[in-house]
Amino acid sequence: MIIKKIKYTFLVLAMLSTGSAEEGMWLLNQLHTLDLESKGLEIPVDEVYNTDQPSISDAIVWLGGCSSSFISPDGLLITNHHCAYSAVMRASTPENNYLRDGFTALNRTEEIEAPGARAYILLETRDVTDEILTAAQGIKDIVKRDRAVDLKMEAIKLEIEAGREDYSARIRAMYNGLSYFLYIYQRFDDVRLVVVPPSSIGKYGGDIDNWMWPRHTGDFAVYRVYSASDGSGADFSPENVPYKPKSWLKISAGDLNEGDFTFIMGFPGKTYRYRTSSSVGYNLNYLYPSSIKKLKEMIDLIGVTVAGSPTGKLKAKSTLASLNNVMKKYQGLVDGMNRTDFLESKIGGEKDFMEFVSSKRKFRKKYGHILGDIENLYQNNSINRKQNAVFNRFRWVYSGTLISTSKKIYDIARELEKSPAERQTGYTEADNKDTYKRFKYSYYSYFEPTDRALFKLTLLKAKELAGDQTIRALDQIINNPDRTIDEYLDHLYGETRMNDPEFAESLQGMTVQELMDLNDPFINLQAALYDGFETKRLVDKKFDSETGDLCKLYIEAMIDWQNENIYPDANSTLRFTYGYVNGYSPRDAINYTPFTTFTGMIDKYTGEDPFDFSEKLGKLHQTGNLGRWADPDLDDVPSCFLHECDITGGNSGSAVMNSRGELIGLAFDGNYEAMTGDWEYDLEIQRTISVDIRYVMFLVEKYAGAGYLLDEMEITD
Amino acid sequence: MIIKKIKYTFLVLAMLSTGSAEEGMWLLNQLHTLDLESKGLEIPVDEVYNTDQPSISDAIVWLGGCSSSFISPDGLLITNHHCAYSAVMRASTPENNYLRDGFTALNRTEEIEAPGARAYILLETRDVTDEILTAAQGIKDIVKRDRAVDLKMEAIKLEIEAGREDYSARIRAMYNGLSYFLYIYQRFDDVRLVVVPPSSIGKYGGDIDNWMWPRHTGDFAVYRVYSASDGSGADFSPENVPYKPKSWLKISAGDLNEGDFTFIMGFPGKTYRYRTSSSVGYNLNYLYPSSIKKLKEMIDLIGVTVAGSPTGKLKAKSTLASLNNVMKKYQGLVDGMNRTDFLESKIGGEKDFMEFVSSKRKFRKKYGHILGDIENLYQNNSINRKQNAVFNRFRWVYSGTLISTSKKIYDIARELEKSPAERQTGYTEADNKDTYKRFKYSYYSYFEPTDRALFKLTLLKAKELAGDQTIRALDQIINNPDRTIDEYLDHLYGETRMNDPEFAESLQGMTVQELMDLNDPFINLQAALYDGFETKRLVDKKFDSETGDLCKLYIEAMIDWQNENIYPDANSTLRFTYGYVNGYSPRDAINYTPFTTFTGMIDKYTGEDPFDFSEKLGKLHQTGNLGRWADPDLDDVPSCFLHECDITGGNSGSAVMNSRGELIGLAFDGNYEAMTGDWEYDLEIQRTISVDIRYVMFLVEKYAGAGYLLDEMEITD
Repeated sequence: MIIKKIKYTFLVLAMLSTGSAEEGMWLLNQLHTLDLESKGLEIPVDEVYNTDQPSISDAIVWLGGCSSSFISPDGLLITNHHCAYSAVMRASTPENNYLRDGFTALNRTEEIEAPGARAYILLETRDVTDEILTAAQGIKDIVKRDRAVDLKMEAIKLEIEAGREDYSARIRAMYNGLSYFLYIYQRFDDVRLVVVPPSSIGKYGGDIDNWMWPRHTGDFAVYRVYSASDGSGADFSPENVPYKPKSWLKISAGDLNEGDFTFIMGFPGKTYRYRTSSSVGYNLNYLYPSSIKKLKEMIDLIGVTVAGSPTGKLKAKSTLASLNNVMKKYQGLVDGMNRTDFLESKIGGEKDFMEFVSSKRKFRKKYGHILGDIENLYQNNSINRKQNAVFNRFRWVYSGTLISTSKKIYDIARELEKSPAERQTGYTEADNKDTYKRFKYSYYSYFEPTDRALFKLTLLKAKELAGDQTIRALDQIINNPDRTIDEYLDHLYGETRMNDPEFAESLQGMTVQELMDLNDPFINLQAALYDGFETKRLVDKKFDSETGDLCKLYIEAMIDWQNENIYPDANSTLRFTYGYVNGYSPRDAINYTPFTTFTGMIDKYTGEDPFDFSEKLGKLHQTGNLGRWADPDLDDVPSCFLHECDITGGNSGSAVMNSRGELIGLAFDGNYEAMTGDWEYDLEIQRTISVDIRYVMFLVEKYAGAGYLLDEMEITD
Repeated sequence: MIIKKIKYTFLVLAMLSTGSAEEGMWLLNQLHTLDLESKGLEIPVDEVYNTDQPSISDAIVWLGGCSSSFISPDGLLITNHHCAYSAVMRASTPENNYLRDGFTALNRTEEIEAPGARAYILLETRDVTDEILTAAQGIKDIVKRDRAVDLKMEAIKLEIEAGREDYSARIRAMYNGLSYFLYIYQRFDDVRLVVVPPSSIGKYGGDIDNWMWPRHTGDFAVYRVYSASDGSGADFSPENVPYKPKSWLKISAGDLNEGDFTFIMGFPGKTYRYRTSSSVGYNLNYLYPSSIKKLKEMIDLIGVTVAGSPTGKLKAKSTLASLNNVMKKYQGLVDGMNRTDFLESKIGGEKDFMEFVSSKRKFRKKYGHILGDIENLYQNNSINRKQNAVFNRFRWVYSGTLISTSKKIYDIARELEKSPAERQTGYTEADNKDTYKRFKYSYYSYFEPTDRALFKLTLLKAKELAGDQTIRALDQIINNPDRTIDEYLDHLYGETRMNDPEFAESLQGMTVQELMDLNDPFINLQAALYDGFETKRLVDKKFDSETGDLCKLYIEAMIDWQNENIYPDANSTLRFTYGYVNGYSPRDAINYTPFTTFTGMIDKYTGEDPFDFSEKLGKLHQTGNLGRWADPDLDDVPSCFLHECDITGGNSGSAVMNSRGELIGLAFDGNYEAMTGDWEYDLEIQRTISVDIRYVMFLVEKYAGAGYLLDEMEITD
């Protein structure tokens, strides 16, 4: 086990040694190394994490992208509004628009399905490093070695999931592959809406306030998890019963003040704290700027295609929210890296590293080549950049629902025809079944004019490619003298049956030949493109294996260089981070204090989205009926607060707890100035923005009128 | 003399009584009522203002729109960069672009003319209330009474100015006409540039930062005033000598801290502190929103017309700066009034007032009708709103230089043909001579494509008028079946000689017939429009007289109602205001502290206007050669600071002094949250933004390299 702390520059090290909180997204088995009692934790660490008996960590639930926590013995689960956004959108119609108006179940029978929402309850964590590394032992070729690792991981996964359809086993590499952890989850697909505020509360401030302080977003939603009567995970069914969690969090209705100890448990997605300057340069100078441009273009285009269509607008909301969020994050990363001269300081840190490497012959031999080799790999990898950018547009939402769905269908059929030794991981029977099961959710966002416009954009980008960057398979589409691109799109969208989600689902189990016999233009397109994608995939895989191997060595070098407790980069596994309630100064002459208020929210009102809210909320403020939720010092309900915890995307919805382990808020954002935090933590300006649980409970009780839930949460006056 | 303080609402009164500084733009003869020693002034009030011997007030100079002050015995005069902006623009060419690059005279012979800059040195102030009111005594008709007042004022003015071409007498009504003051100025037209920073310093932050905190604008310029050798004011001439002021301000190189006493002397332009809700409603609901729309349209249009022309861009700069400034101010007024429910609170205050009025029979009789009558006048006045809006576009820069110049020329000729009893005031021989003399300065902004586009916009607006709002005189231009508007504009701009400033100047003294004989299309247009303008002018004058009379009565009522020391609304006369160095909280979770720094300016750098600056400045920061100008607490040169003084437009460039009467800064802006301050002062959020004199002197010495001026200012280490 690695328990040394790594930093690139002495500057940062010096700062940390005088700081009041430590950076780090810690694995739970590292908690005992943090001396949390001396930092302010008032309960034994055993109550936070314990493999022998129920503890707080058992209340923390992964949502597959977001985090959440149980807050009642009957399976009430709390997360962010923006984490429930897609599910609420899917449950909404222009007539029953829960996204716009909110949703409240006034008793259990009124709870409705949250389509596509999924709760993963962590049952067990195992260190499987030895098993994995043994399987790869002796293999010299890096790509082959990685393949052996992948196959071993898939074998372990299959073994765990055998006979338990509701189990999901995930193995994650830590420290670039120095160790491997197996996470065994139980999956629950019957998740229901209990309380969802209207977007005017849950998304108050919208894209303008997103990543910003001061913030007044009531970013919460309350779900309930249901299980089959035997406690297993099951699809939505009226027969299901509320899930009884092993452990659930107590709500803190009490005081919270500047300087108070807080901690967060959740599932941060991805950080880059141990990357080299080659990676920084690639992201800062190419990936972020080009992505910002692409996202901006898409956002504008979607706006045009849904103008005038209430249905189109509703279907686009979730996609637009995601695109805007990512775009602002990338812009913040660029701004932040430029402001802090991040690339230059990274290069400076690497000079220090090379001095260390030069200090001993054995280090020179073992580590001397790392930075140069990584740089060469990045250089080589830039050759097909333009073509890759177009290929990448076939992923996610970039070219619409039908492109991504038909690609998945065709790819599954191709993989199934490969021999097991050749097959990619991620295509087990259970995986494929699940992929088909999830198709229907992406169709909730399907709106033909948008889909078509996005794919047309992709084709136009492909048309711009020249020379060896050209994608030959598209030639007949984009450079056809007899048919314009629009005519092709007429054919594509006019003759396909892929626009019917049931048709898409019905293709499960078909062979490649059976798919081809359908003569569906989307399937035909995927077949034409397949070889190109396969070539690209193998090149990418090779790059990942080669850089990954060097990065692993780099971590080893760091351990030889420095000598401190370190945490692995975030990888969507359960982590712990702590820090104190604290404001910050974004620049000269401005101090941000750590609490906003309900009144501050009211003051931001402009009457126009995203600073609009219902008359009901306005009246609630006027009458001043704040109940037990007002803070005595503020004489107001606190809305959001700032604290020092170290989080990133994926932590959204994470439980924020006080020194007694009581729930005080939900993490939902970071501040704009700190987006480079994914690359390097800076205590001076990096803050977590959380919605105060008192604001949440105030809204549940006084706004939604669901005070009956407070009894279930055992909140007493 | 009225020495009672008036407030509309008890709320504000209650707040003021606990405040640490008093609101008010005080007349200098009111200073002894303010108990300034107890407030923090460390010198006798006599040293600030004294009719018997030189005092600080003698160093304060009006620039006809801005304020300034003498800072050396040899006539060095300091004001804001934005006050010198037009003059610097006029002195600039694309080759010698002082606006872009700044200007520094390294000795007196290098000083150059500041075209159009004018210094008004106040010689004497007299209370002329008795003379004025006697002249109007017994006249019942309000319009005729106002006319008698106007004629008396003009007579006094002529008497003072007789034989002294460099004298300028101005009489101003105080408290809506309860009293009248005569201000006798000596006018100096030979003003020269000594030090002007580049716009990247003097306008750093541009329209984005304008009205905002935190601020880092080096908004200063140093002029020198020259007089004829006998000390009289004279046009620019190499024979002139530096003016020797009666008094000049000492620069404070010392410390300045939060809580320190400060005061400002300058010439605030216009406030509306004693207006009724009818006026608020008119401005909030009509004038501000429609003006914002108009200004936005003009700004966009000007941008289009100068695109691609460096000359056009330079000529447009000053106009664009003004238009943007006004637009942002109006937007801030609308935002601020809406945020504070200003109209509603005004109406609430008027309810209290009516309760007072109802309390006694004599008040009911005297004051009971005021609010209703004013409201009726506003209602009636709204009838011709659309037509008036078009007529108003013939003023200022709204329709370009040639329209406003030709209108002045034609109007002067018409006024001269009226009998003295009928003639408007403001058309004395000296006035007309001066009008002609100033023509050349407006031609510095003349750029035909812009002029033409702006006037076309006016014509298109006129074309939108319907029914009784139609301007008949424009019919043959805007609705001519034989000639399009563009063809008319070809004729207008193709055949006029008005585009030659010398031609315009040559028309001085011509009769109406002589002007008509020129057959210049601009003159012909003015002749056609004249009757319409005359009708509108008389209607406006009647409205002003009638509302003015009621407002005067309203002030009397206020005096009967409340009982405190009051100051008159700002009217471009010399005023005194004091307050303490203090930040503020613009909204929840944000505290603004009162000092920004040179480093903060550097941190705002983006490399793109308006957050760009020269390499020289960047190097100056890197080397850290801050000299005596660094603040010991900040360990940096302070850039700007916030304090509580009560100012408005016209105060730009005003001297800010400390408790010892030493110059510590130049007021140059107010904060965005406080724009409603023109209507009602709010100590909580209204702040003056001043540039710190240490930053100014640092730039003069270290950036401009004009350290020799420090000796002249008698600054010693």
